[in-house]
Amino acid sequence: MTTNHRIALIPGDGIGAEVLPPARQVLDVLGRRHGFSLSYTSYDDWSCERYLREGAMMPADGIDQLRDKDAILLGAVGYPGVPDHVSLWGLLIPIRRSFRQYVNLRPIRVFEGIDSPVRGARPGEVDFVVVRENMEGEYSEVGGRLNRGFPDEIAVQEAVFTRAGVTRVLDYAFTLASQRGGRLTSATKSNGIVHTMPFWDQLVTERAASFPQVAWDQEHIDALAAKFVLEPARFDVVVASNLFGDILSDLAAAVAGSIGIAPAANLNPERDFPSMFEPVHGSAPDIAGQGIANPLGAIWSAAMMLDHLGHPAAARDITDAITSVLAKTDIRTRDLGGTATTAEFTDKLIELL
Amino acid sequence: MTTNHRIALIPGDGIGAEVLPPARQVLDVLGRRHGFSLSYTSYDDWSCERYLREGAMMPADGIDQLRDKDAILLGAVGYPGVPDHVSLWGLLIPIRRSFRQYVNLRPIRVFEGIDSPVRGARPGEVDFVVVRENMEGEYSEVGGRLNRGFPDEIAVQEAVFTRAGVTRVLDYAFTLASQRGGRLTSATKSNGIVHTMPFWDQLVTERAASFPQVAWDQEHIDALAAKFVLEPARFDVVVASNLFGDILSDLAAAVAGSIGIAPAANLNPERDFPSMFEPVHGSAPDIAGQGIANPLGAIWSAAMMLDHLGHPAAARDITDAITSVLAKTDIRTRDLGGTATTAEFTDKLIELL
Ligand SMILES: CC(C)[C@H](C(=O)O)[C@@H](O)C(=O)O
Ligand SMILES: CC(C)[C@H](C(=O)O)[C@@H](O)C(=O)O
Repeated sequence: MTTNHRIALIPGDGIGAEVLPPARQVLDVLGRRHGFSLSYTSYDDWSCERYLREGAMMPADGIDQLRDKDAILLGAVGYPGVPDHVSLWGLLIPIRRSFRQYVNLRPIRVFEGIDSPVRGARPGEVDFVVVRENMEGEYSEVGGRLNRGFPDEIAVQEAVFTRAGVTRVLDYAFTLASQRGGRLTSATKSNGIVHTMPFWDQLVTERAASFPQVAWDQEHIDALAAKFVLEPARFDVVVASNLFGDILSDLAAAVAGSIGIAPAANLNPERDFPSMFEPVHGSAPDIAGQGIANPLGAIWSAAMMLDHLGHPAAARDITDAITSVLAKTDIRTRDLGGTATTAEFTDKLIELL
Repeated sequence: MTTNHRIALIPGDGIGAEVLPPARQVLDVLGRRHGFSLSYTSYDDWSCERYLREGAMMPADGIDQLRDKDAILLGAVGYPGVPDHVSLWGLLIPIRRSFRQYVNLRPIRVFEGIDSPVRGARPGEVDFVVVRENMEGEYSEVGGRLNRGFPDEIAVQEAVFTRAGVTRVLDYAFTLASQRGGRLTSATKSNGIVHTMPFWDQLVTERAASFPQVAWDQEHIDALAAKFVLEPARFDVVVASNLFGDILSDLAAAVAGSIGIAPAANLNPERDFPSMFEPVHGSAPDIAGQGIANPLGAIWSAAMMLDHLGHPAAARDITDAITSVLAKTDIRTRDLGGTATTAEFTDKLIELL
């Protein structure tokens, strides 16, 4: 008897549809090897195209259709002609929130065989994780506009931080730090953002007391962004609010030379609801449809999914294969300076698996 | 008859007191050469020390004491033992706001003789300016906390963007772009921040229509931070909200290898009130009192001040001397990998002036 996992596949827009099939190929190989099976449900038309046709990114009962799945694998969302706040708030963000995926986890690693744009970012030395709060904070529907179109027009945006919301992501981050290198850095801006960020700092100090084995510090987001460039090897776990985590994780992926490779997990740690896994890269309309997208972001995301589903050995097979294909071959997609197609890159990776 | 300019000197905390005297030495040399004079008023005890003693960073009539000055030169603010939001909101931010310094201007340049941590950041190629909105946006006193200390505690923070406030900084940035390379990049996050950032984007589009000679684009802050590392040479003028400008300008200074060199101008372009000039670096408590701080940030800030006061040739003398001391000598303070003292570095620069 093998465990079966029900997986929702949402390709989304642009290259999203080109990077999910490679991830699925890899998953199927590993299922056979490690004795589990995956059954897929595809939601191919949940996309900007659908929005333009029907006025919604997904059906009205979309969230309910996903509810009984064990995990969601998403390609990419966003396409020219649909404002980003429409496409994202019509699909990605409702999934993150309905399924209480309050942790956004983004590993950052410099691989051998990848040229980092940053001199100090050497393979083996840079290996950290950004833990981003994923459900509240600066991404909030609270706010609006007054005097639209008049000289006295104003827009206000509320950032909302709750004790419960911050505490749970801090607990996740401190626990992770205690299992990794024992170090945690909190991103703050309590010198400029005077209501929410001092509260964040206070909760970090409070939670730190329960994790005496973790050495922690805090850095203002401006200085921290600078340090990602100046001393990328010094981080272990970085915990940040929704917005700061978004900025830091993209920046860190760039520092590691791996925007096309970086994965993200949107986790509901309690497993009350499905978690969602997605590459960090966007829908890349400029190269969509050409079959040259880098599949590694989606494949590494699939590895994070397997880890979450209880198959850490299978997950490690994938990250080992990614490490090998980069270190031992010079086959590369265009974003990494090569000429390989998505299919060629995937085939080579599966060969090394 | 020579013009006299009344300058307020606020050393502030830590190395602030060590970097202002070098700036003053340089200013005096240039006054003699270019036929203007500067008279100084020093506010030596406006600092965290004063706060700890008297409960305020500056006297109650502090702002009024500065009102009749032509410009303010500030060292650095912030010291251990005083929470940053207290020290900053007790001195720096009230000055920015009372004197309606709505533009924060931060030039980014890679100098010959400075090792950038980023491979693609070559001298002569990276030369851009961050124009940061400096009076509203995410830095706001609007907000607060509810249920303090209880499980249901929340903190809210309002970001406030006004049409007038955004438009004036955009006009400044577009005008600057039209005088420089004719290119402008707007930092946004309208995919995640759904009320204020789409408003920002809309105002950029509106103002762009009045500057057909400027080619502009917009980037989400996460992608833009990544591009600062991946393609730093591609920028000319970058315009950003208060928070985004803060993050981007620190990041850019790191990319340029020059946190200790970077200057900032807090401008009231209408000249209704004094503008303020300050190095980007902080008070650096770890090296304060040792006489080894890098004076170039304060000296370059003094150059921006001279430019604002109507002495562009004198300002250029300073930036030329900074360029020379870095390109033609290997005298360096510790932050730049050398062993020179603040005084030795300053003397060499004055020799080259
Ligand atoms: C100290 C802090 C409030 C300040 C800011 O964020 O504005 C500083 O980082 C700066 O950039 O001048
Ligand atoms: C597309 C956007 C809303 C999203 C975010 O900012 O959360 C993306 O940048 C990400 O990081 O997943």
